[in-house]
Amino acid sequence: MKVSQTATLKGLSLGDITQRPFAGDQLMVVRGDAPKGAIVEKHSHPHEQMLYVISGSLRFQLEEEEQVLGPGEIVHIPSDKEHSVVFLEDSLVLDIFSPIREDMLKRLEQQQ
Amino acid sequence: MKVSQTATLKGLSLGDITQRPFAGDQLMVVRGDAPKGAIVEKHSHPHEQMLYVISGSLRFQLEEEEQVLGPGEIVHIPSDKEHSVVFLEDSLVLDIFSPIREDMLKRLEQQQ
Repeated sequence: MKVSQTATLKGLSLGDITQRPFAGDQLMVVRGDAPKGAIVEKHSHPHEQMLYVISGSLRFQLEEEEQVLGPGEIVHIPSDKEHSVVFLEDSLVLDIFSPIREDMLKRLEQQQ
Repeated sequence: MKVSQTATLKGLSLGDITQRPFAGDQLMVVRGDAPKGAIVEKHSHPHEQMLYVISGSLRFQLEEEEQVLGPGEIVHIPSDKEHSVVFLEDSLVLDIFSPIREDMLKRLEQQQ
């Protein structure tokens, strides 16, 4: 059985944010630990995504729309839509993707 | 932008457990609020699944393997593998599926 404590998974650095991927077959969950003030610059990818906020708060932008999200809130990021994040507090989030972000797994391999 | 507070999404009852689905295109996240003692009977589905524990604890079984999971822990449930859950404490979990559980969305429609 593939099971992990996400807090101790190997991490990737995205600026001040630590991203810890857990991959299945077509599904990937990435735990994100972000300090207040951290930023995810505007980007897009063909992978469909959900972002769930466990704790903290962030300002999320999807194309021209913007919204502040807090604990328990979730947003759907359709394939290829530009999005960005500014963390307003120290936060714990889950980024959920389908299909798998092979690019992240490759970076994880390369840094080991 | 499709965004929701998962605590206030429309819920389905699975025994004592309340399941609140949030569906995208190929991705679905279901918030599960379960009291201590609640049980998800052994079942399987073709959908790939991840189970992430936000708070509480549960005993998870995948085919012949069993493990207790707590906050921050995640397990991968491959397509068509039998699994079951016993909640050991009041718990908040996320069930993540691909593709979408159309059966759950249909039940949600029917009860409205």
